[in-house]
Amino acid sequence: MNAPSTTEADLFVEELHPSLSDPGLETMNFLNEVAHRFPKAVPFAAGRPCEEFFDLDALPRYLTTFQRYLATEKGADERQVRRTLLQYGRTKGIIHELLARTLRLDEGIEVDPESIVVTAGCQEAMFLALRALCASEQDVVLAVSPSYVGLTGAARLLDREVWPVRETAHGVDLDHLVAQVAAIRAVGKRPRAFYLVPDFANPSGMSLDLDSRKALLDLAGQHDFLLLEDNPYGVFQAEDGPRVPTLKALDTDRRVVYLGSLAKTCFPGARVGYAVADQLVSSRHGGTGLLADELSKIKSMLTVNTSPLAQAMAGGKLLEHGCSLVRANQAEIAVYRRNMRLLLDGLRRRFPAGQPHGVSWNTPSGGFFVVVTVPFVADDAMLEHSARRHEVLWTPMSHFYDGGGGANQLRLSISVVTPEQVETGLDRLLALVEEQAHRAGAGN
Amino acid sequence: MNAPSTTEADLFVEELHPSLSDPGLETMNFLNEVAHRFPKAVPFAAGRPCEEFFDLDALPRYLTTFQRYLATEKGADERQVRRTLLQYGRTKGIIHELLARTLRLDEGIEVDPESIVVTAGCQEAMFLALRALCASEQDVVLAVSPSYVGLTGAARLLDREVWPVRETAHGVDLDHLVAQVAAIRAVGKRPRAFYLVPDFANPSGMSLDLDSRKALLDLAGQHDFLLLEDNPYGVFQAEDGPRVPTLKALDTDRRVVYLGSLAKTCFPGARVGYAVADQLVSSRHGGTGLLADELSKIKSMLTVNTSPLAQAMAGGKLLEHGCSLVRANQAEIAVYRRNMRLLLDGLRRRFPAGQPHGVSWNTPSGGFFVVVTVPFVADDAMLEHSARRHEVLWTPMSHFYDGGGGANQLRLSISVVTPEQVETGLDRLLALVEEQAHRAGAGN
Repeated sequence: MNAPSTTEADLFVEELHPSLSDPGLETMNFLNEVAHRFPKAVPFAAGRPCEEFFDLDALPRYLTTFQRYLATEKGADERQVRRTLLQYGRTKGIIHELLARTLRLDEGIEVDPESIVVTAGCQEAMFLALRALCASEQDVVLAVSPSYVGLTGAARLLDREVWPVRETAHGVDLDHLVAQVAAIRAVGKRPRAFYLVPDFANPSGMSLDLDSRKALLDLAGQHDFLLLEDNPYGVFQAEDGPRVPTLKALDTDRRVVYLGSLAKTCFPGARVGYAVADQLVSSRHGGTGLLADELSKIKSMLTVNTSPLAQAMAGGKLLEHGCSLVRANQAEIAVYRRNMRLLLDGLRRRFPAGQPHGVSWNTPSGGFFVVVTVPFVADDAMLEHSARRHEVLWTPMSHFYDGGGGANQLRLSISVVTPEQVETGLDRLLALVEEQAHRAGAGN
Repeated sequence: MNAPSTTEADLFVEELHPSLSDPGLETMNFLNEVAHRFPKAVPFAAGRPCEEFFDLDALPRYLTTFQRYLATEKGADERQVRRTLLQYGRTKGIIHELLARTLRLDEGIEVDPESIVVTAGCQEAMFLALRALCASEQDVVLAVSPSYVGLTGAARLLDREVWPVRETAHGVDLDHLVAQVAAIRAVGKRPRAFYLVPDFANPSGMSLDLDSRKALLDLAGQHDFLLLEDNPYGVFQAEDGPRVPTLKALDTDRRVVYLGSLAKTCFPGARVGYAVADQLVSSRHGGTGLLADELSKIKSMLTVNTSPLAQAMAGGKLLEHGCSLVRANQAEIAVYRRNMRLLLDGLRRRFPAGQPHGVSWNTPSGGFFVVVTVPFVADDAMLEHSARRHEVLWTPMSHFYDGGGGANQLRLSISVVTPEQVETGLDRLLALVEEQAHRAGAGN
């Protein structure tokens, strides 16, 4: 917002939808804007995937690969291939069968391709699920706190409440979850779903252990709500070895709506995500269908269908790697593992155990994010200072707490930094910590 | 909806969002399903663009053309080009400057590219505008009736009312518009915008004359609402010669939010549309920005950004035709003109003036659609009969009237039929009309 005087205004933001006056939104803009203003600062704030393996030359080949798949596996003639890629098409998408194969191979999830809705990024999948489930203002969603801002944003767009549930070191505070569900019912409302990222969460890096996952599925059944499992980082495990199964892989009672993203595993430029919604939906007038078909109806009123051209390019990449995103991301996985190791080692070296620096951090088993606790308030003003004076960017954790929290925490991301940047960035972070300790000392 | 019994239901549709129980939605599914069941019927129902010039081989070239544009016109280096196409990107899009050129060349509309938001199809643009403007349940939107179902669907998703305004042969019933605005205010609500397709409307084929456009702009100013101008068919004029200017071209007071689609003019498979929203939005706390930036914030919570890969392919096509969609669509324009002429001539021959057949129709000056009035009820049951017995598909006009209307009318579309199909289809329509007349006669 800048420039002309309010006298010539056509509209007032206060008369537009309340989500536009939400401070959370301003704050996200601020973060983007700081990164833009200090391009030389070490980008520990960026959540986007690494770019070093982006390959524009592969795109025409992906298109051709997908066309060949349509012709050979789906028996499409030339006209049908053209129509599939260029015409209006199936609302639920055209790569649903490939995604079902990917889920089987990478995640051990068995789903009917008909229960998959391909979406304009995972953000749309989130929106569709919330719109379907939160019918009236009585319907609220629960979310792990700290939470991904996209979930909060989608709920705000729909004027729906998000009730926070505390996170623990190994999962979710299940007692708090049960208490919140009871509190929601006590005020006459209905808990519809609980949103979380069980693997290498954004922003916290947290992963649920197996027992917590099973307990969570049990609670969802007992208290009658769904689980919205968001899994953008699952394949980016920091060590070799078996992964803890996703909630959806453990889901025997169709309690989980699985939200998938290809942004980090294919390329963000496709904007392709999906929802797996195999819940059976009945009408009191008779007839039963899949929740996926209800989400598809909502999608028809929102974006009609997901660009088949974008789907074809993502689909071509899937096909060229035998529908395994683990296989497709070997190079990226190696980069993220190296960076995560460098970051954690670098933190240990700079902030040794037993010293009174007041700095601590968690040790995620994968993904992009580490949370660092510092002995000062890590807010937007401090970020601005850190960017300007020390040339290192990070994300204040307070942005991810809807109702307050995380004041002394910051999120570091390892997804787009080089090994040199990790070291430089940590040196600069150390300088910031020392400067703040000095100031606090001087103030005593 | 089919198969299993309700005893094993996970959810009930009646407890999901009310838009999912809307009869209008079922009806659209029915239309798709009828077309699917009778593939040999003449497709006078299809609203999709003709496919004969679809060219898969052009796609890699479009990508290259757009990359060259980024390099030469925007000064991007190789890394920036890769990032622009494959990484997360600008929420408002990457083809805004090309679209501004297109609007200038094809429509005489001068806009700052910063006031353009590129969207996941025009449907998303519609949704963004409604979400921004209709802040609370007090905020309602007006729409010309009969209306495009996408507008009604987007409003339903947001639990917002759509008040109908009657259409006339040459535009909109302005007296009815004023009366509806007064009625809205009388019940304590706020009319935020009036939606219409001023050129070759879907479903009616109607176009507003110049005087009606000017009067409409005046009324919007006097009564303080915006105009949502949807223009997917504007370049498909049926005769050579000057076009009536769009509302946006006549808009001196920023009263018009222009909704653009590339589905009919580039290819539906890109799913790229846009909104032009140059309204100045002030905050009471100070500061002024563009409505486009507010729509962009909403988009960040809905789909994040529009697939840059899809934008690049549409952008490449724009560039290869000097950013003129009129030029890019010469072949398509010729097909639609020929089909429209054949349809209107064919109707005249089969239902000659002065004969007691009870059949009449309008004469659109462009676009895809003609409305035919028939002496029987043209509802879903009749469509099913028409498809099964006579092998001709059309769309009951009643689907486009939210509050009832169009019972004796059907919409014929000329966009995907061959000349032979026009003749066969009209013969079959004649047979249907004669059969119904015979039945009515027998029933007397």
